Amino acid sequence: MPKISNKGQVIPASPIRKLTPFAEQAKLDGKKVYHLNIGQPDIETPEGMLNAVKNIDFKVWAYTASEGTLSYRKKLTEYYNKLNYGIDPSNIIVTTGGSEAITIAMMTCLNPGDEVIIPEPFYANYNSFAVQSDIVVKPILSYIDNGFALPAISEFEKLITNRTKAIIICNPNNPTGYLYSKEEMQALKELVLKYDLYLFSDEAYREFCYDGREFISPMHLEGIDDNVIIMDTVSKRYSACGARLGCLITKNKEVLQAALKFAQARLSPGLVEQIAGEAAVDTPDSYFETVNKEYTHRRDILVNALNQMDGVFCPNPGGAFYVVAKLPIDNADKFCQWILESFSHNNATVMMAPATGFYSTKGAGVNEVRMAYVLNTTDLQNAMTCLEEALKVYPGTVEQEQVAASVQS
Amino acid sequence: MPKISNKGQVIPASPIRKLTPFAEQAKLDGKKVYHLNIGQPDIETPEGMLNAVKNIDFKVWAYTASEGTLSYRKKLTEYYNKLNYGIDPSNIIVTTGGSEAITIAMMTCLNPGDEVIIPEPFYANYNSFAVQSDIVVKPILSYIDNGFALPAISEFEKLITNRTKAIIICNPNNPTGYLYSKEEMQALKELVLKYDLYLFSDEAYREFCYDGREFISPMHLEGIDDNVIIMDTVSKRYSACGARLGCLITKNKEVLQAALKFAQARLSPGLVEQIAGEAAVDTPDSYFETVNKEYTHRRDILVNALNQMDGVFCPNPGGAFYVVAKLPIDNADKFCQWILESFSHNNATVMMAPATGFYSTKGAGVNEVRMAYVLNTTDLQNAMTCLEEALKVYPGTVEQEQVAASVQS
Repeated sequence: MPKISNKGQVIPASPIRKLTPFAEQAKLDGKKVYHLNIGQPDIETPEGMLNAVKNIDFKVWAYTASEGTLSYRKKLTEYYNKLNYGIDPSNIIVTTGGSEAITIAMMTCLNPGDEVIIPEPFYANYNSFAVQSDIVVKPILSYIDNGFALPAISEFEKLITNRTKAIIICNPNNPTGYLYSKEEMQALKELVLKYDLYLFSDEAYREFCYDGREFISPMHLEGIDDNVIIMDTVSKRYSACGARLGCLITKNKEVLQAALKFAQARLSPGLVEQIAGEAAVDTPDSYFETVNKEYTHRRDILVNALNQMDGVFCPNPGGAFYVVAKLPIDNADKFCQWILESFSHNNATVMMAPATGFYSTKGAGVNEVRMAYVLNTTDLQNAMTCLEEALKVYPGTVEQEQVAASVQS
Repeated sequence: MPKISNKGQVIPASPIRKLTPFAEQAKLDGKKVYHLNIGQPDIETPEGMLNAVKNIDFKVWAYTASEGTLSYRKKLTEYYNKLNYGIDPSNIIVTTGGSEAITIAMMTCLNPGDEVIIPEPFYANYNSFAVQSDIVVKPILSYIDNGFALPAISEFEKLITNRTKAIIICNPNNPTGYLYSKEEMQALKELVLKYDLYLFSDEAYREFCYDGREFISPMHLEGIDDNVIIMDTVSKRYSACGARLGCLITKNKEVLQAALKFAQARLSPGLVEQIAGEAAVDTPDSYFETVNKEYTHRRDILVNALNQMDGVFCPNPGGAFYVVAKLPIDNADKFCQWILESFSHNNATVMMAPATGFYSTKGAGVNEVRMAYVLNTTDLQNAMTCLEEALKVYPGTVEQEQVAASVQS
């Protein structure tokens, strides 16, 4: 039997999905499982987007241009220019989800062995995509105590070598919900200019900023047009994760030209999705207002409930729909498995993602979990009650002081 | 400005699409362009498949399982088991087009620097996918004179090194239309067993076999379950290229497990497409009978017309909807550009794909072009008249004897 590749051996299992067999078993055992593990919103997709799918009128489901249809890219340009990105359709390559925007950006900009710096905890699949392209991820710790703010620029500089080619930020952040400030973005700008680096900005959660806070994209910063690559998706914006429709945006012409060749290799993004995506741009503002109000409300419920539990700390994030919370436990992987396997309250339990999977630094996040507030408020409240009860009886519950001591930094 | 990667520099432009600017200009100049360059069929997508899209009834356009929905994989299993593949749903990973099945197979099975042997001319994007994964393509020439039959096994053996990990076949073949015989498949089986290699079988054109010829998949051969990976797509089968829906099939459990992790990294294939793909499996046989009759008729028109032109030779292929023809010209790249730029007949011209882009061996295919017979018969006949007239006046037309001498092998 031929051997599989080294990549096939080292690519990590998804921290979001790896506990799925235990959740399945819990369901077979008759328990209700509250899914806080995955960023699959329960919010309805805008009607206009679904109607565009229902109203397709082509006879041949044909390829589109590899960079996406001109018609969709024109409409997207409208969307981005309302946000003052100052782009035209030629700056956009439509991709199969945000995932493909990330892989194309990595392949276009980094050689095998090149290094990318990413504040951690970070979206776990960046690791998988880096493995695919033999790129080296250099994590830089951010800390729960200051809400996972951007690490000091001096810490970035310590990691920079002659192989460093890029920095990835996810803003608002998955998994922490942190929204980078104007000052932090400005500091990143100076850094990428000083060292001639790419700045990859994953903006999947752009629409989800709370408490009136301002979203700052690197596209808003002057003088770094050639450094910036935006990786985006409609998945969260329109609750259309299963559409697999994203895009890569840059004003760097050399990057665009090379990225297009990677896009040509896989021929075309989906036709139906681009039709739907075009309609989605006309989603009324009221949709977002309702959705953001709902998420703000959920966040408040979740964060308040968590911080009222003994030994639990959860910063109040400014965006996205995730929190990372510190629990008074020995080990998040064990706990997240135990709560599915060996615990129930009112015949229900909770699925969470151990935060360890979002860190590259060994031992980091060992007492942290990521939760997505993608459930209605009643379910969220029930899930929190369930978690609180679980912490009371979990055999690995530890005192808060021990927790602090066990965290490596 | 940061530098792009080496991959971004060396990944080839698509030979199918690279002449597009000249075609666009020809259209701006008022010429009709017959597109024989690309495998985008004009055949209508089955109604049942399009109706499934129109009848979606979900409210949240959600992720599916990374390996595809169980419901779609069950239905696909029905399709494949009618063809005697002897699989179950766990052998299938649903992918974003056949393209993703190829990239996942390569990443799962080959390390950077590992070698894959591919009979050439071959589907040009194999080269691009290999560049993405730093895999080395070892081409092995097949010849127009015997219709591009499988090269002798002894020729394969000459190329095998300790880095050789796989052989890729595309059957029926793109670009040549050649359909591999039972004996050829049997010989490949012995070869992959002898050297413990993977056999990647790209079966995008499985449904298009003509003159009553039998399609043989490596899934029909006993004793190589662990070696075989099928890469498939609905693109051509149902004329649904823009659906971007494919799959990877293998009975090798280790490969499945690793491939799933690559699939998890990009989260999910498209939901709407899987719903449509499920409906597509119920497409009545009459659809394929009508389509195959139409393609056989077109092939006959094209091949006959070509072989009646002075100095032109075109083998009669057993499958797919492509031919590679040898023309009495100095250089196919020049000719294909010239016919768009500087020629018209009845105010029309022809876009073809220079075959050089389908060869890795330098100088091979220099007087060959690939044509896809994806136009109606009237357009095809007009395109052939146009080509014939063009060959009479093209400044680089050469005598047949010169052609034979100029081909490197």
